[in-house]
Amino acid sequence: MNRIGESITLTLFGASHDSRIGCVIDGIPPGYPVNVESITADLELRKPSAGIGTPRVEADVPEISGIVDGITTGCPVVITFSNSNTRSSDYEQLRRIPRPGHADYPAVSKFGPAHDIRGGGMFSGRMTTPLVAAGALLRDLIGSLGISVGSYVTRIGSVVDTNTYDPADVLTRSRTNPLRAMSSGIEDRMRAEILVAKSDGDSVGGIVRCFATGLPAGLGEPFFDTLDGEISKAVFAIPGVKAIGFGEGFAAAGLRGSENNDAYRIQNGSVVTLTNHAGGVLGGMSSGAVLDFSVAFKPTPSIAKQQMSVDLLTREDAELSVKGRHDPCIANRGAIVVEAMTVFTLADLALRGGFLV
Amino acid sequence: MNRIGESITLTLFGASHDSRIGCVIDGIPPGYPVNVESITADLELRKPSAGIGTPRVEADVPEISGIVDGITTGCPVVITFSNSNTRSSDYEQLRRIPRPGHADYPAVSKFGPAHDIRGGGMFSGRMTTPLVAAGALLRDLIGSLGISVGSYVTRIGSVVDTNTYDPADVLTRSRTNPLRAMSSGIEDRMRAEILVAKSDGDSVGGIVRCFATGLPAGLGEPFFDTLDGEISKAVFAIPGVKAIGFGEGFAAAGLRGSENNDAYRIQNGSVVTLTNHAGGVLGGMSSGAVLDFSVAFKPTPSIAKQQMSVDLLTREDAELSVKGRHDPCIANRGAIVVEAMTVFTLADLALRGGFLV
Repeated sequence: MNRIGESITLTLFGASHDSRIGCVIDGIPPGYPVNVESITADLELRKPSAGIGTPRVEADVPEISGIVDGITTGCPVVITFSNSNTRSSDYEQLRRIPRPGHADYPAVSKFGPAHDIRGGGMFSGRMTTPLVAAGALLRDLIGSLGISVGSYVTRIGSVVDTNTYDPADVLTRSRTNPLRAMSSGIEDRMRAEILVAKSDGDSVGGIVRCFATGLPAGLGEPFFDTLDGEISKAVFAIPGVKAIGFGEGFAAAGLRGSENNDAYRIQNGSVVTLTNHAGGVLGGMSSGAVLDFSVAFKPTPSIAKQQMSVDLLTREDAELSVKGRHDPCIANRGAIVVEAMTVFTLADLALRGGFLV
Repeated sequence: MNRIGESITLTLFGASHDSRIGCVIDGIPPGYPVNVESITADLELRKPSAGIGTPRVEADVPEISGIVDGITTGCPVVITFSNSNTRSSDYEQLRRIPRPGHADYPAVSKFGPAHDIRGGGMFSGRMTTPLVAAGALLRDLIGSLGISVGSYVTRIGSVVDTNTYDPADVLTRSRTNPLRAMSSGIEDRMRAEILVAKSDGDSVGGIVRCFATGLPAGLGEPFFDTLDGEISKAVFAIPGVKAIGFGEGFAAAGLRGSENNDAYRIQNGSVVTLTNHAGGVLGGMSSGAVLDFSVAFKPTPSIAKQQMSVDLLTREDAELSVKGRHDPCIANRGAIVVEAMTVFTLADLALRGGFLV
């Protein structure tokens, strides 16, 4: 369904070429501040970067209701955006000839001829705009617990950032970098990787690493509504996500328990771990350490190169070169969307667990 | 919470050292066959293997109610198991001195002194017994759509199986191998890897690859209740899971769109893909190709080696060597649990999507 969450729910509506898209956020406790500037700032991080993004540019000015004098009232908050820069004619043939790697074929199989094919309909990356606004709006809520969420891009195609960074540094520094890289040197290499793919009529994938600092221990509702499970469900809703791993992730499979376990120590009267191979999650709950997970985005499926497809009407093989306007890489724009879904999930779990009232 | 699912719900109850553990499965349509032999067969695959598993052996005989003459009636189905082989005295000190890498510390932080510490309480791998029974019970339901679910172990510690297998072959062959490996040669190397770790008082992790064949296109309920997201949430509830990836998973980040996209062709009048880099998921829905994902299990946190921990009562550093009875590796026993959570999720999504009535 188009709703996620339990104590706080997020309902998404609209489609890529609808007149409006938006979301309803219900269950926010009354009395929390909402900073429209921080919503705008997060939306800026989702916009296509000069030279490497889609030529489709939208103003992305949020219209917000349910807030009085910058304070939540307990009412549902509604955030909408107008779509003005659409070219629906680019898409009609995709109903017959589905794009490889895109949602077209399963969507037409599921929804039939009524499926909104324009711009990918509800499966468009455009739908992540309200998600980013919702996440930004809830940052103050989890901020009241001392929780901050940030991310950076660790990989674009063959360019891999293997450096180690202080999570607190990531929270601020990667926001000033257009590609969400942690240094201008790596940014330059990542930009080149994207531009070479673009000039080939192709695309590249990437990896986003997300941190949340300041979590109390015990966030998450086992057995099934775990911290890692709820974040994963929320993150897999983001178009293009193919994998998620917490802490060591897949690499944990190659470790011994004595290497992977994080030793506890008392520091200044508090329980800390000397390492964080667990990524801040134990038994489906926050351990009190920094939440640390990585998310893989596939290369954008819409590419100019000719691809093999089928004509669903004549049931014959067909060829396709995708028109329309697309990003040659979505991982860097996806970073703020990963943050948004993480903020949302942490806010919902904080309310469910009685950490917020 | 201890309930998962929407059209079919699975509610889990009990704890590792409770007298009974079990689950309630609600929403199964009436008239479907339930094969107790196949439940027993799946439970056998969860039992510790000779020589490499925990010394704790339970009979694991399911008591099932809500079934008449082997047919579901529409009533909730309840499956319970008795716990008879428990040694709770092994665990009391863990309330004060939490095991590194285990749920002890976040659980005590969240639930306080009332937390059931015996055998890990509700965070024990023992809780996966009812999950396996529930999955086995629902195999006939999705089998009526032609869907089959199977898995095998691709990695234990440093032993990696890089071979490619036909999914149909995996569905049958890995069930006959005690380590869920695809060949006796690899099984021998994996067993040796586990036994060496065990003799060191240590443990190792592993990776399980899961297939589902026969899925119709369009299973999954975007925007948020996606096929990949719902499977991930269900799989992260399994103790010890740290990562999941669909198709190419994290490797998709290093590919070009032209490499990662799966070309469509018409074969015998049907739409097929020539490759399956997407792992059978596009836009949060099944593509009609084989569902293919991998799951990483961390090395078992309970190890005999001395580890650094803390005394939560005195707030001082402490040392710990875990007593009790544990597996030096859980990935091979975890494979059937991954299958169970996958079967459950597919059954729930099939009902939600109108594929089953």
